[in-house]
Order: sequence, then C-alpha cells, then structure tokens
Amino acid sequence: MPANAVDAAALEAILLAAPFHRWLGLRLSSLDEDGVEIAMPWREEFVADPAIGYTHGGILAALIDLTADFAVAAKLGRGVPTVDMRVDYHRAALSGEALVGRGRIIRMGRTLATAEATIHRADGTLIASGRGVYLTATP
Amino acid sequence: MPANAVDAAALEAILLAAPFHRWLGLRLSSLDEDGVEIAMPWREEFVADPAIGYTHGGILAALIDLTADFAVAAKLGRGVPTVDMRVDYHRAALSGEALVGRGRIIRMGRTLATAEATIHRADGTLIASGRGVYLTATP
Amino acid sequence: MPANAVDAAALEAILLAAPFHRWLGLRLSSLDEDGVEIAMPWREEFVADPAIGYTHGGILAALIDLTADFAVAAKLGRGVPTVDMRVDYHRAALSGEALVGRGRIIRMGRTLATAEATIHRADGTLIASGRGVYLTATP
Amino acid sequence: MPANAVDAAALEAILLAAPFHRWLGLRLSSLDEDGVEIAMPWREEFVADPAIGYTHGGILAALIDLTADFAVAAKLGRGVPTVDMRVDYHRAALSGEALVGRGRIIRMGRTLATAEATIHRADGTLIASGRGVYLTATP
Repeated sequence: MPANAVDAAALEAILLAAPFHRWLGLRLSSLDEDGVEIAMPWREEFVADPAIGYTHGGILAALIDLTADFAVAAKLGRGVPTVDMRVDYHRAALSGEALVGRGRIIRMGRTLATAEATIHRADGTLIASGRGVYLTATP
Repeated sequence: MPANAVDAAALEAILLAAPFHRWLGLRLSSLDEDGVEIAMPWREEFVADPAIGYTHGGILAALIDLTADFAVAAKLGRGVPTVDMRVDYHRAALSGEALVGRGRIIRMGRTLATAEATIHRADGTLIASGRGVYLTATP
Repeated sequence: MPANAVDAAALEAILLAAPFHRWLGLRLSSLDEDGVEIAMPWREEFVADPAIGYTHGGILAALIDLTADFAVAAKLGRGVPTVDMRVDYHRAALSGEALVGRGRIIRMGRTLATAEATIHRADGTLIASGRGVYLTATP
Repeated sequence: MPANAVDAAALEAILLAAPFHRWLGLRLSSLDEDGVEIAMPWREEFVADPAIGYTHGGILAALIDLTADFAVAAKLGRGVPTVDMRVDYHRAALSGEALVGRGRIIRMGRTLATAEATIHRADGTLIASGRGVYLTATP
C-alpha cells in the first residue's frame, strides 16, 4: 500500500471543499496509513420516518461511499469518482445520534481501487457497512 | 405481481412524510402498475465538486434507494426497510440539472422484494442505475 | 451503443475456448445488437442440496457473470475481465432443469462497461438476476 | 454473536453433502468462533482462458458465496439460502494454484445475516473479496 499523499489537515480541506460534505456537517476525525475516520453529526433533515426518527438509508449510503472514497483519497491527494458501491444496513441510526464512518482500502490499483467502510454509533455499535470501486486512473 | 395498494396521491403523501425526501424536493411524477417515477430538482447543497458542479454520488445513491423502495411501497401502501443496495454510476449529473428516478420491482416476495431503479436527465440520458433488497415481512 | 464486432459463430467460439464454459455445457443460443442468450443444460455436479436437488448459487453466479460479460464481448470481439458483480437469487433452479441467461449492456465505456443478466427457466420464469462491471480498456 | 452450533467435523459433513462442493474439492480447513476457512484445490475445468490458465470468476464467486454462507452455517448447524451477493476481483488466480476462502459474519439476525469472505493464495495474497446476505429465518 502506498504512503498517504496528504496529512489530515489537507485531506479535511479536500473533504470540505464539497458543498454536500459541508451540509452533512462532516469532520475528518482520524487519518493514519491504514485508513480514515469521518464524523457526522445528526441533522433533522436526515430523518426518514418522523414517527421513529431514524436516519434515511440514503444518508448512510452517502457516508459509506464518501468514507471509502476518502480512504483512497488519502493515498492520492484527491477525491476519486465512484464506479459502483454496495451498502448493507444492519441497525437503525436513531434521532439525534452522531455517527462515525471508518474507511479502509481493500486493493489499490493504478486504474481502480476497492475500498470498504463501516458506520458506527459513538459506542462502536455497527450501523451499516459497504464497499465501493473507485477510479484511480489519472483523469 | 400484486396490484398497487395506494393511488398516486396517497403514495406521494407517504413519500413526503420523510423530512429527508422533503429536503431533496421530491415529487411523485408517475405511478402505474409497472412502477414509479420520482422527480428531483437540483439543489446547491448536492454539489460534490465546486469546480465542476456535479451532483454527489451519495445523493444519487439516495435517489436509487428510495425510488426502488417506492416501487415496492406502491404494492404495500407503506415504505419498507432496505436490506442492501447497489449503485452503478454511469455519467455525471451536472449543476442545475433536474433528475428523474424510475423504479420497478424485479421480484416481490412475502419476506423480501428485489427492486431496481435508474436515474435519468430530462432528455432521458442514463446517469446511474442500481438495485436493492427490501424487507416486506410485516414488522 | 457500438455494433457487434463478431457474429454468433465467432462469439460462441470465444465462449467455448474456456474449459469452464465447456464443463458448464454452454451454448450461445442467440445474439443480436441488444444482447446475448446463453443456454446451460443441467449437470448432476451443479446440485447444492441432494435432498431437494436444486442448483448451487455459485453456478448461477457464474452464469450471471459470464452472460453479462459476453454481452460486452459481443461488442469487442473478446471476453473482458470482471471488476465486480452482484447476484440476486429469486427462485430455486430445480434438478434437471435447463436454464438460459440473457445479457444486456447498461453502459459501454472505453475503460469500463456495466452489463446485466437474468437467468430463466425454459418457460421464462425468472430464477436470478444481477449485474457486473467489466474492464474494457485495451489490456 | 451466538456460539457455533456444530464442530468442524459436523460442519465439513454438511459442506460435503453438496455434490457441487465435492466437485470443487473443498475441505473445511479451520473453524473457530470468529469464522471458517475453506480450502479449494485447483482443477483443470476451472480455467477461463486456456492461454493464460487463470481460474474463472464464476468459480471464485462460488467460493466467496459458500465461504460466507458457511460462516453463518457454523452458527446454525445448517447451510442457508443466499439472498444476494457481491464479489470484487482483485488479482488472477493462476493455473495450478490452490486457494483458501476465509469467511466471517458481519451481522447475525433472526431473519437475515450478512457475512463476508476473502480468497487468498497459499502465501496469503488477496485474490477476491465479497459479501452476501443470507436467510436465517427457520424455513
């Protein structure tokens, strides 16, 4: 696996250049050679079901995608286009609950990379998991 | 395939009960026995890359998930939990571009349903496609 | 979508160059500009459960993968490496049952293609469906 | 996570009850509370490309599916139906090469389980990885 191309401050700057990431309230909470951790606070607009208040699966899908993406971005110093992704939903993320995504590269290649991500509650409980394929070829 | 359990007005009411769907600006643009069509206008907060202005893959993933989900919801008269989903990204959705999701059931079962969705530009161009498995068992 | 690069006889020759395809007993049963159809007879070695006799999901996964692959191969005149694939299982394929895979391209690109496939009984009943991403870049 | 319902000898007996698993030449090489390891020798019929001799992706898909399945089977004392699965291909498995699949449960539920698997060369090199959803509800 190649070394990271950027440090945490530079990677967070790339992350927060995206208006959607700013709307999600993301923060890069950890970066090392093995992967990234991205924190996402709760927003009222995330809610899927107003009776129960849990977070919409589309928000979790976005967090899986971008967390795995930024595990790759750390190695390249730039975000990369997603080719395809899969998300598995394990438990509901409840109203008011801050979440954290943990991303890790499975296979880094010159054309494509495969990376995976998990989403956890503050106490570590697994909420969702998934993986994606990312285009690493120079645009 | 069973007949729809609700008409378009009732299905749109279920759709718009979700705060996230209201934030996305969704509208049920078509419903028949073969599937649903959901329109999504553009929002500045959707943007992934401010230089190019294209829509974040997480927004497209959400639209794939909820469009396939509402193809199932039409048959049951209620939204259903997503078990897992896959999205394939084919082209960028550009800044200012309204999109439409088309959803269709592949297999309807008493415990699980499989449904697919595609996302298109106003001119019909395919932007993304995917599928999900949904829990249809009575909660 | 580009025109087919090969005719049915040439595509079947490419298909049957693979020892695994010959073991599966495959035959190219149809080819046109929209896709391919590949027939697979039953073999006793396909069985997953000797009590019920149904075909193993791994055999169906192989048929989904190679059918979608050959939808792309028809356009290029060569088989292509699979990047990733997804299979959804809808019904059991029973003992003695010949199956047919139908493959179709979703998106053809210079680096990657996305293609889908369905598996049917002789009477058309849907058994499984799925999709894959294939590397189309010249090796 | 529940304790294993069967020991290694009993789980291998369930594995080898399937004619397809016997044809693949499988052997349960390890079982503990965290997962299973299944060894697969090489067969000439696995070959996809006679010029290069690498193993067909469908064989790898089958090994991913059944390895993840048997991580769940260890907890239940029976094989379980696959709902859907995903495979990512990382490197070619070459001619003559014995492989090993390692399976692990991600989330065990009363209706559904999610499990993942990786395929390795004898030296540990990662060849393919994936995950599936399995029906755990009593039939």
